[in-house]
Amino acid sequence: MVICKVIGHLWATKKEESLNGLKLMVVEQVDHKEKSVNKIFVAVDIVSAGIGEKVIVVTGSTARKALGKENVVIDAAIVGIIDSIEVK
Amino acid sequence: MVICKVIGHLWATKKEESLNGLKLMVVEQVDHKEKSVNKIFVAVDIVSAGIGEKVIVVTGSTARKALGKENVVIDAAIVGIIDSIEVK
Amino acid sequence: MVICKVIGHLWATKKEESLNGLKLMVVEQVDHKEKSVNKIFVAVDIVSAGIGEKVIVVTGSTARKALGKENVVIDAAIVGIIDSIEVK
Amino acid sequence: MVICKVIGHLWATKKEESLNGLKLMVVEQVDHKEKSVNKIFVAVDIVSAGIGEKVIVVTGSTARKALGKENVVIDAAIVGIIDSIEVK
Amino acid sequence: MVICKVIGHLWATKKEESLNGLKLMVVEQVDHKEKSVNKIFVAVDIVSAGIGEKVIVVTGSTARKALGKENVVIDAAIVGIIDSIEVK
Repeated sequence: MVICKVIGHLWATKKEESLNGLKLMVVEQVDHKEKSVNKIFVAVDIVSAGIGEKVIVVTGSTARKALGKENVVIDAAIVGIIDSIEVK
Repeated sequence: MVICKVIGHLWATKKEESLNGLKLMVVEQVDHKEKSVNKIFVAVDIVSAGIGEKVIVVTGSTARKALGKENVVIDAAIVGIIDSIEVK
Repeated sequence: MVICKVIGHLWATKKEESLNGLKLMVVEQVDHKEKSVNKIFVAVDIVSAGIGEKVIVVTGSTARKALGKENVVIDAAIVGIIDSIEVK
Repeated sequence: MVICKVIGHLWATKKEESLNGLKLMVVEQVDHKEKSVNKIFVAVDIVSAGIGEKVIVVTGSTARKALGKENVVIDAAIVGIIDSIEVK
Repeated sequence: MVICKVIGHLWATKKEESLNGLKLMVVEQVDHKEKSVNKIFVAVDIVSAGIGEKVIVVTGSTARKALGKENVVIDAAIVGIIDSIEVK
Protein backbone atom coordinates (compact mmCIF):
# COMPACT_ATOMS: atom_id res chain seq x y z
CA MET A 1 0.00 0.00 0.00
CA VAL A 2 1.17 3.53 -0.56
CA ILE A 3 0.71 6.72 1.42
CA CYS A 4 -1.17 9.38 -0.52
CA LYS A 5 -2.62 12.81 0.06
CA VAL A 6 -6.10 13.44 -1.31
CA ILE A 7 -5.81 16.54 -3.51
CA GLY A 8 -9.04 16.71 -5.48
CA HIS A 9 -12.15 15.33 -7.15
CA LEU A 10 -12.68 14.06 -10.65
CA TRP A 11 -15.92 13.83 -12.64
CA ALA A 12 -16.71 11.66 -15.63
CA THR A 13 -20.25 11.44 -16.97
CA LYS A 14 -19.47 8.99 -19.74
CA LYS A 15 -17.96 5.93 -18.11
CA GLU A 16 -18.03 2.17 -17.85
CA GLU A 17 -21.22 1.34 -15.93
CA SER A 18 -19.59 -0.38 -12.93
CA LEU A 19 -18.11 3.02 -12.04
CA ASN A 20 -21.55 4.58 -11.52
CA GLY A 21 -21.97 5.98 -8.03
CA LEU A 22 -18.33 5.63 -7.07
CA LYS A 23 -16.45 8.62 -5.63
CA LEU A 24 -13.34 9.28 -7.70
CA MET A 25 -10.56 11.19 -5.96
CA VAL A 26 -7.29 12.57 -7.29
CA VAL A 27 -4.44 11.48 -5.01
CA GLU A 28 -0.76 12.34 -4.83
CA GLN A 29 1.65 9.71 -3.56
CA VAL A 30 3.89 10.93 -0.73
CA ASP A 31 6.57 9.47 1.52
CA HIS A 32 6.38 9.19 5.33
CA LYS A 33 7.32 12.88 5.65
CA GLU A 34 4.45 13.91 3.35
CA LYS A 35 6.90 14.78 0.61
CA SER A 36 5.48 14.23 -2.87
CA VAL A 37 7.03 11.49 -4.99
CA ASN A 38 5.52 13.01 -8.12
CA LYS A 39 2.92 10.36 -8.80
CA ILE A 40 -0.62 11.57 -9.33
CA PHE A 41 -3.42 9.10 -9.92
CA VAL A 42 -7.11 8.42 -9.40
CA ALA A 43 -8.51 6.22 -6.61
CA VAL A 44 -12.00 5.22 -5.55
CA ASP A 45 -12.77 6.36 -2.02
CA ILE A 46 -14.55 3.86 0.24
CA VAL A 47 -13.79 5.47 3.62
CA SER A 48 -15.19 9.00 3.11
CA ALA A 49 -11.81 10.69 2.96
CA GLY A 50 -11.61 14.45 2.68
CA ILE A 51 -9.39 16.77 0.68
CA GLY A 52 -5.98 17.16 2.35
CA GLU A 53 -6.16 13.94 4.34
CA LYS A 54 -3.39 11.38 4.25
CA VAL A 55 -4.71 7.99 3.22
CA ILE A 56 -3.72 4.39 2.55
CA VAL A 57 -4.19 3.42 -1.10
CA VAL A 58 -4.17 -0.11 -2.51
CA THR A 59 -3.60 -0.79 -6.19
CA GLY A 60 -4.00 -3.59 -8.69
CA SER A 61 -6.40 -6.51 -8.27
CA THR A 62 -6.64 -5.74 -4.53
CA ALA A 63 -8.55 -2.55 -5.28
CA ARG A 64 -11.45 -4.60 -6.64
CA LYS A 65 -11.59 -6.56 -3.38
CA ALA A 66 -12.08 -3.25 -1.54
CA LEU A 67 -15.44 -2.88 -3.25
CA GLY A 68 -16.39 -6.48 -2.75
CA LYS A 69 -17.20 -6.77 -6.43
CA GLU A 70 -14.86 -8.76 -8.62
CA ASN A 71 -16.13 -7.10 -11.81
CA VAL A 72 -15.83 -3.45 -10.89
CA VAL A 73 -13.45 -1.64 -13.22
CA ILE A 74 -11.03 -0.02 -10.76
CA ASP A 75 -7.36 -0.54 -9.98
CA ALA A 76 -6.83 1.84 -7.04
CA ALA A 77 -8.84 2.42 -3.85
CA ILE A 78 -8.54 4.52 -0.71
CA VAL A 79 -8.94 1.97 2.12
CA GLY A 80 -7.90 3.90 5.24
CA ILE A 81 -7.49 7.39 6.65
CA ILE A 82 -4.11 7.75 8.36
CA ASP A 83 -4.21 9.04 11.94
CA SER A 84 -0.48 9.06 12.50
CA ILE A 85 2.83 7.77 11.21
CA GLU A 86 5.69 7.17 13.64
CA VAL A 87 9.06 6.75 11.99
CA LYS A 88 12.30 6.38 13.94
CA MET B 1 -6.44 4.57 -12.37
CA VAL B 2 -4.37 7.11 -14.21
CA ILE B 3 -5.27 10.27 -16.06
CA CYS B 4 -4.32 10.13 -19.74
CA LYS B 5 -4.74 12.21 -22.85
CA VAL B 6 -5.74 10.36 -26.01
CA ILE B 7 -3.13 11.24 -28.62
CA GLY B 8 -3.64 8.82 -31.48
CA HIS B 9 -4.72 5.59 -33.12
CA LEU B 10 -2.81 2.39 -33.70
CA TRP B 11 -3.44 -0.32 -36.29
CA ALA B 12 -2.30 -3.92 -36.27
CA THR B 13 -3.60 -6.38 -38.87
CA LYS B 14 -1.72 -9.38 -37.56
CA LYS B 15 -2.78 -9.84 -33.95
CA GLU B 16 -4.00 -12.28 -31.33
CA GLU B 17 -7.62 -13.03 -32.28
CA SER B 18 -9.28 -11.70 -29.09
CA LEU B 19 -8.09 -8.23 -30.15
CA ASN B 20 -10.22 -8.30 -33.33
CA GLY B 21 -12.68 -5.44 -33.47
CA LEU B 22 -11.19 -3.55 -30.52
CA LYS B 23 -10.30 0.13 -30.87
CA LEU B 24 -6.66 0.63 -29.93
CA MET B 25 -5.69 4.15 -28.86
CA VAL B 26 -2.32 5.67 -28.07
CA VAL B 27 -2.50 7.49 -24.73
CA GLU B 28 -0.10 9.72 -22.84
CA GLN B 29 -0.23 9.72 -19.06
CA VAL B 30 -0.59 13.18 -17.52
CA ASP B 31 -0.95 14.67 -14.07
CA HIS B 32 -3.94 16.68 -12.80
CA LYS B 33 -2.63 19.78 -14.61
CA GLU B 34 -2.44 17.90 -17.91
CA LYS B 35 1.34 17.86 -17.76
CA SER B 36 2.85 14.80 -19.41
CA VAL B 37 4.66 12.33 -17.18
CA ASN B 38 6.42 10.82 -20.20
CA LYS B 39 4.59 7.52 -20.31
CA ILE B 40 3.08 6.55 -23.64
CA PHE B 41 1.11 3.34 -23.97
CA VAL B 42 -1.76 1.65 -25.77
CA ALA B 43 -5.25 1.24 -24.31
CA VAL B 44 -8.48 -0.27 -25.61
CA ASP B 45 -11.26 2.30 -25.78
CA ILE B 46 -14.69 1.22 -24.54
CA VAL B 47 -16.26 4.65 -24.08
CA SER B 48 -15.85 6.17 -27.57
CA ALA B 49 -13.18 8.65 -26.53
CA GLY B 50 -11.86 11.12 -29.07
CA ILE B 51 -8.38 12.42 -29.82
CA GLY B 52 -7.38 15.13 -27.32
CA GLU B 53 -9.80 14.06 -24.62
CA LYS B 54 -8.68 13.44 -21.07
CA VAL B 55 -9.64 9.96 -19.94
CA ILE B 56 -9.48 7.52 -17.03
CA VAL B 57 -7.35 4.47 -17.83
CA VAL B 58 -7.22 1.22 -15.84
CA THR B 59 -4.35 -1.21 -16.16
CA GLY B 60 -3.51 -4.80 -15.29
CA SER B 61 -6.09 -7.53 -14.74
CA THR B 62 -8.78 -4.87 -14.24
CA ALA B 63 -8.58 -3.94 -17.94
CA ARG B 64 -9.93 -7.36 -18.87
CA LYS B 65 -12.93 -6.80 -16.59
CA ALA B 66 -13.72 -3.66 -18.59
CA LEU B 67 -14.45 -5.83 -21.61
CA GLY B 68 -16.37 -8.39 -19.60
CA LYS B 69 -14.25 -11.14 -21.11
CA GLU B 70 -11.70 -12.83 -18.90
CA ASN B 71 -9.72 -14.14 -21.86
CA VAL B 72 -9.24 -10.99 -23.88
CA VAL B 73 -5.57 -10.16 -24.27
CA ILE B 74 -5.43 -6.57 -23.02
CA ASP B 75 -3.85 -4.91 -19.99
CA ALA B 76 -5.05 -1.30 -20.35
CA ALA B 77 -8.49 0.18 -21.08
CA ILE B 78 -10.06 3.61 -21.31
CA VAL B 79 -13.06 3.42 -18.96
CA GLY B 80 -14.19 7.04 -18.60
CA ILE B 81 -14.06 10.44 -20.29
CA ILE B 82 -13.11 13.13 -17.78
CA ASP B 83 -15.46 16.12 -17.59
CA SER B 84 -13.53 18.04 -14.99
CA ILE B 85 -10.88 17.78 -12.32
CA GLU B 86 -11.04 20.02 -9.26
CA VAL B 87 -7.81 20.16 -7.27
CA LYS B 88 -7.32 22.42 -4.28
CA MET C 1 10.27 -9.87 -3.60
CA VAL C 2 12.12 -6.77 -2.52
CA ILE C 3 14.48 -6.08 0.35
CA CYS C 4 13.14 -3.45 2.73
CA LYS C 5 14.06 -1.89 6.04
CA VAL C 6 11.25 -1.44 8.56
CA ILE C 7 11.28 2.24 9.51
CA GLY C 8 8.04 2.85 11.38
CA HIS C 9 4.43 2.24 12.29
CA LEU C 10 1.24 3.62 10.83
CA TRP C 11 -2.17 3.97 12.45
CA ALA C 12 -5.55 4.34 10.80
CA THR C 13 -8.74 4.17 12.84
CA LYS C 14 -11.11 4.60 9.93
CA LYS C 15 -10.38 1.81 7.49
CA GLU C 16 -11.84 -0.95 5.36
CA GLU C 17 -12.90 -3.66 7.81
CA SER C 18 -10.64 -6.47 6.52
CA LEU C 19 -7.69 -4.36 7.75
CA ASN C 20 -8.85 -4.57 11.39
CA GLY C 21 -6.23 -6.11 13.63
CA LEU C 22 -3.45 -6.05 11.05
CA LYS C 23 -0.08 -4.51 11.91
CA LEU C 24 0.77 -1.82 9.38
CA MET C 25 4.45 -0.97 9.02
CA VAL C 26 6.20 1.73 7.03
CA VAL C 27 9.02 0.20 5.00
CA GLU C 28 11.79 1.63 2.86
CA GLN C 29 13.03 -0.39 -0.10
CA VAL C 30 16.81 -0.91 -0.12
CA ASP C 31 19.36 -2.73 -2.27
CA HIS C 32 21.61 -5.58 -1.11
CA LYS C 33 23.97 -3.04 0.53
CA GLU C 34 21.10 -1.51 2.54
CA LYS C 35 21.19 1.59 0.40
CA SER C 36 17.77 3.22 0.02
CA VAL C 37 16.19 3.22 -3.43
CA ASN C 38 13.82 6.00 -2.39
CA LYS C 39 10.64 3.96 -2.28
CA ILE C 40 8.60 4.22 0.90
CA PHE C 41 5.42 2.20 1.28
CA VAL C 42 3.18 0.40 3.74
CA ALA C 43 3.22 -3.36 4.32
CA VAL C 44 1.31 -5.69 6.63
CA ASP C 45 3.64 -7.54 8.98
CA ILE C 46 2.96 -11.25 9.50
CA VAL C 47 6.33 -12.26 10.97
CA SER C 48 6.62 -9.90 13.96
CA ALA C 49 9.35 -7.75 12.44
CA GLY C 50 10.86 -4.93 14.47
CA ILE C 51 11.91 -1.42 13.58
CA GLY C 52 15.30 -1.39 11.86
CA GLU C 53 15.14 -4.99 10.66
CA LYS C 54 15.74 -5.94 7.06
CA VAL C 55 12.81 -7.88 5.68
CA ILE C 56 11.48 -9.61 2.57
CA VAL C 57 8.37 -7.89 1.19
CA VAL C 58 5.96 -9.33 -1.39
CA THR C 59 3.62 -7.12 -3.37
CA GLY C 60 0.54 -7.43 -5.54
CA SER C 61 -1.91 -10.33 -5.39
CA THR C 62 0.72 -12.42 -3.60
CA ALA C 63 0.38 -10.25 -0.48
CA ARG C 64 -3.19 -11.46 -0.03
CA LYS C 65 -1.96 -15.08 -0.07
CA ALA C 66 0.33 -14.22 2.85
CA LEU C 67 -2.73 -13.68 5.00
CA GLY C 68 -4.50 -16.72 3.68
CA LYS C 69 -7.56 -14.62 2.96
CA GLU C 70 -8.38 -13.86 -0.66
CA ASN C 71 -10.57 -10.89 0.28
CA VAL C 72 -8.24 -8.96 2.56
CA VAL C 73 -7.52 -5.51 1.15
CA ILE C 74 -3.71 -5.44 1.13
CA ASP C 75 -1.13 -5.34 -1.65
CA ALA C 76 2.14 -5.61 0.33
CA ALA C 77 3.23 -7.92 3.15
CA ILE C 78 6.38 -8.57 5.16
CA VAL C 79 6.92 -12.34 4.83
CA GLY C 80 10.43 -12.89 6.20
CA ILE C 81 13.09 -11.37 8.44
CA ILE C 82 16.47 -11.40 6.70
CA ASP C 83 19.32 -13.00 8.68
CA SER C 84 22.02 -12.39 6.12
CA ILE C 85 22.70 -11.53 2.50
CA GLU C 86 25.81 -12.84 0.81
CA VAL C 87 26.66 -11.11 -2.45
CA LYS C 88 29.82 -11.82 -4.41
CA MET D 1 -0.16 -2.49 -23.63
CA VAL D 2 3.15 -0.98 -24.58
CA ILE D 3 4.79 -0.32 -27.93
CA CYS D 4 8.04 -2.23 -28.36
CA LYS D 5 10.61 -2.87 -31.04
CA VAL D 6 11.83 -6.44 -31.41
CA ILE D 7 15.61 -6.32 -31.14
CA GLY D 8 16.75 -9.91 -30.72
CA HIS D 9 16.42 -13.53 -29.71
CA LEU D 10 17.20 -15.26 -26.44
CA TRP D 11 17.99 -18.92 -25.82
CA ALA D 12 17.74 -20.90 -22.61
CA THR D 13 18.19 -24.66 -22.60
CA LYS D 14 17.61 -25.11 -18.90
CA LYS D 15 14.18 -23.71 -18.14
CA GLU D 16 10.85 -24.31 -16.46
CA GLU D 17 9.08 -26.90 -18.63
CA SER D 18 6.04 -24.77 -19.61
CA LEU D 19 8.50 -22.56 -21.55
CA ASN D 20 9.47 -25.40 -23.89
CA GLY D 21 8.82 -24.58 -27.53
CA LEU D 22 8.05 -20.91 -26.92
CA LYS D 23 9.84 -18.24 -28.95
CA LEU D 24 11.56 -15.81 -26.60
CA MET D 25 12.31 -12.37 -28.04
CA VAL D 26 14.23 -9.44 -26.60
CA VAL D 27 12.16 -6.27 -26.92
CA GLU D 28 12.85 -2.61 -26.28
CA GLN D 29 9.98 -0.38 -25.17
CA VAL D 30 9.55 2.73 -27.30
CA ASP D 31 7.17 5.67 -27.46
CA HIS D 32 4.90 6.54 -30.40
CA LYS D 33 7.88 8.11 -32.24
CA GLU D 34 9.93 4.92 -31.88
CA LYS D 35 12.17 6.58 -29.32
CA SER D 36 13.52 4.14 -26.73
CA VAL D 37 12.34 4.56 -23.15
CA ASN D 38 15.28 2.46 -21.91
CA LYS D 39 13.33 -0.61 -20.89
CA ILE D 40 14.60 -3.91 -22.28
CA PHE D 41 12.75 -7.11 -21.47
CA VAL D 42 11.83 -10.56 -22.75
CA ALA D 43 8.47 -11.43 -24.32
CA VAL D 44 7.01 -14.58 -25.83
CA ASP D 45 6.08 -14.11 -29.47
CA ILE D 46 2.74 -15.54 -30.59
CA VAL D 47 2.31 -13.58 -33.83
CA SER D 48 5.55 -14.47 -35.68
CA ALA D 49 7.11 -11.06 -35.30
CA GLY D 50 10.47 -10.34 -36.94
CA ILE D 51 13.52 -8.45 -35.77
CA GLY D 52 13.04 -4.70 -36.19
CA GLU D 53 9.23 -4.81 -36.19
CA LYS D 54 7.15 -2.62 -33.91
CA VAL D 55 4.82 -4.70 -31.80
CA ILE D 56 2.15 -4.55 -29.11
CA VAL D 57 3.25 -6.20 -25.88
CA VAL D 58 1.01 -7.18 -22.96
CA THR D 59 2.40 -7.81 -19.49
CA GLY D 60 1.34 -9.38 -16.21
CA SER D 61 -1.40 -11.99 -15.87
CA THR D 62 -2.74 -11.01 -19.31
CA ALA D 63 0.34 -12.51 -20.97
CA ARG D 64 -0.72 -15.96 -19.81
CA LYS D 65 -4.12 -15.47 -21.47
CA ALA D 66 -2.31 -14.88 -24.76
CA LEU D 67 -1.12 -18.47 -24.70
CA GLY D 68 -4.48 -19.81 -23.59
CA LYS D 69 -2.77 -21.70 -20.79
CA GLU D 70 -3.25 -20.44 -17.26
CA ASN D 71 -0.18 -22.28 -15.97
CA VAL D 72 2.43 -21.14 -18.46
CA VAL D 73 5.22 -19.27 -16.73
CA ILE D 74 5.35 -16.03 -18.71
CA ASP D 75 4.56 -12.42 -17.84
CA ALA D 76 5.03 -10.69 -21.21
CA ALA D 77 3.80 -11.55 -24.71
CA ILE D 78 3.90 -10.02 -28.17
CA VAL D 79 0.24 -10.01 -29.27
CA GLY D 80 0.23 -7.80 -32.38
CA ILE D 81 2.44 -6.45 -35.14
CA ILE D 82 1.90 -2.72 -35.58
CA ASP D 83 1.09 -1.56 -39.11
CA SER D 84 0.89 2.13 -38.34
CA ILE D 85 0.51 4.67 -35.57
CA GLU D 86 -1.25 7.95 -36.26
CA VAL D 87 -0.65 10.60 -33.60
CA LYS D 88 -1.96 14.17 -33.93
CA MET E 1 10.17 -11.41 -18.19
CA VAL E 2 13.33 -9.56 -17.36
CA ILE E 3 16.99 -10.43 -17.79
CA CYS E 4 18.83 -10.62 -14.46
CA LYS E 5 22.25 -11.58 -13.18
CA VAL E 6 22.32 -13.73 -10.05
CA ILE E 7 24.52 -11.89 -7.56
CA GLY E 8 23.97 -13.59 -4.22
CA HIS E 9 22.07 -15.59 -1.64
CA LEU E 10 19.71 -14.49 1.07
CA TRP E 11 18.79 -16.26 4.29
CA ALA E 12 15.74 -15.78 6.49
CA THR E 13 15.03 -18.15 9.37
CA LYS E 14 11.81 -16.47 10.45
CA LYS E 15 9.50 -16.51 7.48
CA GLU E 16 6.02 -17.31 6.22
CA GLU E 17 5.81 -21.11 6.14
CA SER E 18 5.21 -21.53 2.38
CA LEU E 19 8.74 -20.17 1.87
CA ASN E 20 10.33 -23.10 3.73
CA GLY E 21 12.79 -25.00 1.58
CA LEU E 22 12.85 -22.46 -1.23
CA LYS E 23 16.18 -21.10 -2.52
CA LEU E 24 16.16 -17.32 -2.32
CA MET E 25 18.58 -15.52 -4.63
CA VAL E 26 19.50 -11.87 -4.91
CA VAL E 27 19.27 -10.77 -8.54
CA GLU E 28 20.20 -7.60 -10.39
CA GLN E 29 18.17 -6.63 -13.45
CA VAL E 30 20.30 -5.98 -16.53
CA ASP E 31 19.73 -5.08 -20.17
CA HIS E 32 20.69 -7.20 -23.18
CA LYS E 33 24.31 -6.00 -22.87
CA GLU E 34 24.48 -7.09 -19.22
CA LYS E 35 24.45 -3.48 -18.09
CA SER E 36 22.73 -3.01 -14.71
CA VAL E 37 19.48 -1.05 -14.66
CA ASN E 38 19.85 -0.49 -10.91
CA LYS E 39 17.08 -2.80 -9.76
CA ILE E 40 18.01 -5.35 -7.09
CA PHE E 41 15.42 -7.82 -5.87
CA VAL E 42 14.89 -11.32 -4.52
CA ALA E 43 13.70 -14.26 -6.63
CA VAL E 44 13.06 -17.92 -5.90
CA ASP E 45 15.29 -20.18 -7.98
CA ILE E 46 13.64 -23.23 -9.56
CA VAL E 47 16.29 -24.04 -12.19
CA SER E 48 19.43 -24.40 -10.04
CA ALA E 49 21.04 -21.20 -11.24
CA GLY E 50 24.51 -20.27 -10.01
CA ILE E 51 26.04 -16.99 -8.95
CA GLY E 52 27.05 -14.90 -11.95
CA GLU E 53 24.65 -16.57 -14.39
CA LYS E 54 22.24 -14.59 -16.53
CA VAL E 55 18.70 -15.73 -15.97
CA ILE E 56 15.09 -15.14 -17.00
CA VAL E 57 12.97 -13.84 -14.12
CA VAL E 58 9.17 -13.70 -14.03
CA THR E 59 7.34 -11.45 -11.60
CA GLY E 60 3.84 -11.01 -10.19
CA SER E 61 1.19 -13.72 -10.09
CA THR E 62 3.14 -15.68 -12.73
CA ALA E 63 5.88 -16.41 -10.19
CA ARG E 64 3.45 -18.50 -8.16
CA LYS E 65 2.66 -20.58 -11.25
CA ALA E 66 6.38 -21.40 -11.50
CA LEU E 67 6.14 -23.31 -8.25
CA GLY E 68 2.87 -24.97 -9.19
CA LYS E 69 1.37 -23.84 -5.90
CA GLU E 70 -1.19 -21.07 -5.98
CA ASN E 71 -0.70 -20.26 -2.29
CA VAL E 72 3.05 -19.90 -2.12
CA VAL E 73 4.03 -16.40 -1.02
CA ILE E 74 6.41 -15.32 -3.78
CA ASP E 75 6.24 -12.68 -6.50
CA ALA E 76 9.47 -13.34 -8.43
CA ALA E 77 11.03 -16.55 -9.75
CA ILE E 78 14.05 -17.54 -11.81
CA VAL E 79 12.58 -19.73 -14.58
CA GLY E 80 15.44 -20.12 -17.05
CA ILE E 81 19.21 -19.92 -17.39
CA ILE E 82 20.17 -17.87 -20.43
CA ASP E 83 22.57 -19.56 -22.88
CA SER E 84 22.84 -16.67 -25.30
CA ILE E 85 21.25 -13.44 -26.41
CA GLU E 86 21.52 -12.35 -30.02
CA VAL E 87 20.65 -8.72 -30.63
CA LYS E 88 21.00 -7.04 -34.01
